[in-house]
Amino acid sequence: MPIVRIEMWPGRTVEQKQELARVITDAVVNIAKTTPEATFVIFEDVPKENWSQAGVLASATPQPQT
Amino acid sequence: MPIVRIEMWPGRTVEQKQELARVITDAVVNIAKTTPEATFVIFEDVPKENWSQAGVLASATPQPQT
Amino acid sequence: MPIVRIEMWPGRTVEQKQELARVITDAVVNIAKTTPEATFVIFEDVPKENWSQAGVLASATPQPQT
Amino acid sequence: MPIVRIEMWPGRTVEQKQELARVITDAVVNIAKTTPEATFVIFEDVPKENWSQAGVLASATPQPQT
Amino acid sequence: MPIVRIEMWPGRTVEQKQELARVITDAVVNIAKTTPEATFVIFEDVPKENWSQAGVLASATPQPQT
Amino acid sequence: MPIVRIEMWPGRTVEQKQELARVITDAVVNIAKTTPEATFVIFEDVPKENWSQAGVLASATPQPQT
Repeated sequence: MPIVRIEMWPGRTVEQKQELARVITDAVVNIAKTTPEATFVIFEDVPKENWSQAGVLASATPQPQT
Repeated sequence: MPIVRIEMWPGRTVEQKQELARVITDAVVNIAKTTPEATFVIFEDVPKENWSQAGVLASATPQPQT
Repeated sequence: MPIVRIEMWPGRTVEQKQELARVITDAVVNIAKTTPEATFVIFEDVPKENWSQAGVLASATPQPQT
Repeated sequence: MPIVRIEMWPGRTVEQKQELARVITDAVVNIAKTTPEATFVIFEDVPKENWSQAGVLASATPQPQT
Repeated sequence: MPIVRIEMWPGRTVEQKQELARVITDAVVNIAKTTPEATFVIFEDVPKENWSQAGVLASATPQPQT
Repeated sequence: MPIVRIEMWPGRTVEQKQELARVITDAVVNIAKTTPEATFVIFEDVPKENWSQAGVLASATPQPQT
């Protein structure tokens, strides 16, 4: 039943999400010994104005995309 | 204090969400022995391109709506 | 793919969780038009010392069990 | 590593989120004895039609903004 | 309806959680313009062996408590 | 800022979690173009009696470990 949830800033393409889902599912199946069908990956896009580190919103800082 | 959180693909109407909130609140109140006022239901709409099973995004497969 | 997550204070029995899972799954299947197999219910037990309303931990108040 | 997650109805400004992130980070650093850099605050805007108390969607009730 | 969720490593006392709940509730009430009764704070203790940064479990590194 | 959260049934060893954290962090860094330091992986162990599919608790079924 592994459910994997990935919060990231917006900007990743559907192709990147598809590749992440594929590679992470493989890792979970191989390392945690489960089946692909039982493994779910859910993405959540978090806008930079909804995310802060050290008390500063990411939208307020000229930081590189990570 | 029960907090119920429901992740579904988009497409449900407000009427369906209202009906789900009502029926699930009743179930929680009756079975878990709490009060309606203490019971919260939160919906989260997950786009199909943000959800994968077996490493394949739901947006990539011609599967029926579930 | 509905994933239902229920946070409650500890104290419910496995029988109550089983009954909740059954009734809520039925509601989701019937109202949101999905299948039982695609519907997951996950319980999370939240200790009263980890939960506050109005800034007061539930473990600190002589309130009735809800 | 504290990760703080705040679910609220939409309508708060970026300035309010920035102020909340700053004050909450200060509180976590001072009370939980961690560092600002290790403290993250994430906001999630929950539409009123996706939130119910006592089985009634917030979008259906003429309640004051809270 | 603000729901605040705080994930931290174990080790904080009930007194620290009570103080955090009080201060954060005050901040949310004052800055987001809601009521104390509508504001919930939930703590989740995450064991160090269940948390990694840069691919290394926190339980494996001799890092200071944060 | 990617935060990856993995819910699984209990039973995985610390070594399996460490290996999962390492491989998933590598995948996120390479595919989503971020840095290892900005990538967090959090595990949550979900007891089988707290998880149901099709309305049946996993603890009630003689199913293989997945």
